[in-house]
Amino acid sequence: MKKSLVRASVQSLHAYVPGEQPAGERKFIKLNTNENPYPPSPKVDAALRGLSAETLRLYPPPAADALRRRIAAMHACGVEHVFAGNGSDEVLALCTRAFVENDGCIGYFEPSYSLYPVLAAIRDVRTMPVALGQGFSWQTPPVEGSGLFFLTNPNAPTGMAFPPEAIEAFCASYRGVVLIDEAYVDFAESDCMALARRYDNVLVSRTLSKSYSLAGLRVGYCVGAPALIEALNKLKDSYNLDRVAQTLALAALEDVDYMRRNVALIKTQRDRLGSALAGAGFDVFASETNFIWTKPPEGITAVDYVAALRERGILIRYFPQGELARYVRITIGTPGEMTALIAATEAILAG
Amino acid sequence: MKKSLVRASVQSLHAYVPGEQPAGERKFIKLNTNENPYPPSPKVDAALRGLSAETLRLYPPPAADALRRRIAAMHACGVEHVFAGNGSDEVLALCTRAFVENDGCIGYFEPSYSLYPVLAAIRDVRTMPVALGQGFSWQTPPVEGSGLFFLTNPNAPTGMAFPPEAIEAFCASYRGVVLIDEAYVDFAESDCMALARRYDNVLVSRTLSKSYSLAGLRVGYCVGAPALIEALNKLKDSYNLDRVAQTLALAALEDVDYMRRNVALIKTQRDRLGSALAGAGFDVFASETNFIWTKPPEGITAVDYVAALRERGILIRYFPQGELARYVRITIGTPGEMTALIAATEAILAG
Repeated sequence: MKKSLVRASVQSLHAYVPGEQPAGERKFIKLNTNENPYPPSPKVDAALRGLSAETLRLYPPPAADALRRRIAAMHACGVEHVFAGNGSDEVLALCTRAFVENDGCIGYFEPSYSLYPVLAAIRDVRTMPVALGQGFSWQTPPVEGSGLFFLTNPNAPTGMAFPPEAIEAFCASYRGVVLIDEAYVDFAESDCMALARRYDNVLVSRTLSKSYSLAGLRVGYCVGAPALIEALNKLKDSYNLDRVAQTLALAALEDVDYMRRNVALIKTQRDRLGSALAGAGFDVFASETNFIWTKPPEGITAVDYVAALRERGILIRYFPQGELARYVRITIGTPGEMTALIAATEAILAG
Repeated sequence: MKKSLVRASVQSLHAYVPGEQPAGERKFIKLNTNENPYPPSPKVDAALRGLSAETLRLYPPPAADALRRRIAAMHACGVEHVFAGNGSDEVLALCTRAFVENDGCIGYFEPSYSLYPVLAAIRDVRTMPVALGQGFSWQTPPVEGSGLFFLTNPNAPTGMAFPPEAIEAFCASYRGVVLIDEAYVDFAESDCMALARRYDNVLVSRTLSKSYSLAGLRVGYCVGAPALIEALNKLKDSYNLDRVAQTLALAALEDVDYMRRNVALIKTQRDRLGSALAGAGFDVFASETNFIWTKPPEGITAVDYVAALRERGILIRYFPQGELARYVRITIGTPGEMTALIAATEAILAG
């Protein structure tokens, strides 16, 4: 019997399953992957118009210098504190290879971003999931036993922010690297960027996918101590960010005001949807993100609610694992999309 | 003393150093990174014009289905035989994680693409370099002892193609996965794509960076047995290829004729430069790529030749390691660039 050509840990691996991207004819209201309902800044469009295909014959700047300088200026740090990646997914994956030995361990909250255990399985190392407290509240993780801790704040899929002082106390005592995943932080009341400057074991990652409406461009970054950033740079593909991505991301980051206006619109709809769902008997968790985590009322299960919405042309996200299967995650869309969702929900409950 | 936060193998790692991308005011004739001197197809430009920034708010198709279908059609295989990556660099890096156990080993020729030992160091596994024969000729590697063999054909930096029957005989008996890196194959007389269909342990990788003039876009792919492709898909970032890259790569692959015309122009200049260098006393190796590997004549060292060209505004590639330090690698450019290079070379040798 011939030995398998594929590594044992890869054979048994279950890949991450992203939310559905419908490809067919049918037009859905898409509230399942936390995309921004508004287009990116007009400056991104102008930068796209200004691009010449001719320049694509040349390799991109390997270290994305101009983009990193802009990010450094935004966060009042030197460029050596900034790593730019092909989506923050690349940042997270590189962290597992930079900061965890083969016999090491990766920690994360449960529930949290469901990619983390997949990244640990890809890296073929142990995991230390830390169960959150009552109502998905903060629970201080052990400060030893793992070399890397993925801390999503605000958390996903719950949408809730953790107390800043609890996060800082954990970072100060944790023995490994804390990656604070701030994918949704532009929708939140506070952020942890100061910790990336204050502690030599803290990285804060951001993405342009959500607040900047650029999920299709794949640009994320992290900020932290130069020794950590240097490790990520050593491990990345030589040219991890293409020319178009570098150029358009820079344009987006030069229009923070536009992003903030969209965030304000989304937060207004978040409040509206939260009230409507609570009024309909849903258990609604306080969101500081562009989505709402909620449990349907008695009388309808989450899976049935998701299916009923799908029949009405609305996609939301459902996680079939364990306790999570009682909840749904709904991305905040335009006012019209929220009106449609609320009406559909009322119709389903009236059923 | 606090334990380092960075993994031991990463601390000692020396990252790959890409060829210089000059950023200053000075305009160089750039013959140092094997970029194509011609712009990408007009169809790429048209696709770029047709892009709407608005679509970038949505995540890209995670498996790049349309692009992979086109690649599959080009190579007369099913889409399940195709993996699309963020440059063929991503394909190579994923292979080290998919097909090599932690106590495994990666084989490659010496000299060959200098990224391979770096990828092995990043993966923190042993290497089995196989010295080429006299004049950088084929040398059959051991069929055991490594789980992955990177086989560049035509080889880089020598530019020489290996005998197809020798490659096939090796693939047939090798116990691991052979990744045949065909980055330069569009400039060659033959290719090994048939081996990817014939052997369940062979992957053939291609890139759009060279022949398709899209180094700045970062798109590569590989073709092989579905079991190997599935392993790569499990390990990749969920959305490894952005929307722009997928769209423009598809446009480029729909204009193979345009690529072939540029390749013909480049091959004409390759012959011309080879003759001129040989006439000037250089040792010139038979190239089936878009570059020439050559040893300067007695009287000038490679490093001095490179420096003298740089003074004259021409960049070529030099590898300072061991035996390679006696040679230079020159990318084939436009007729005007080759005229300038030949004139500069004559002046340097006369001087």
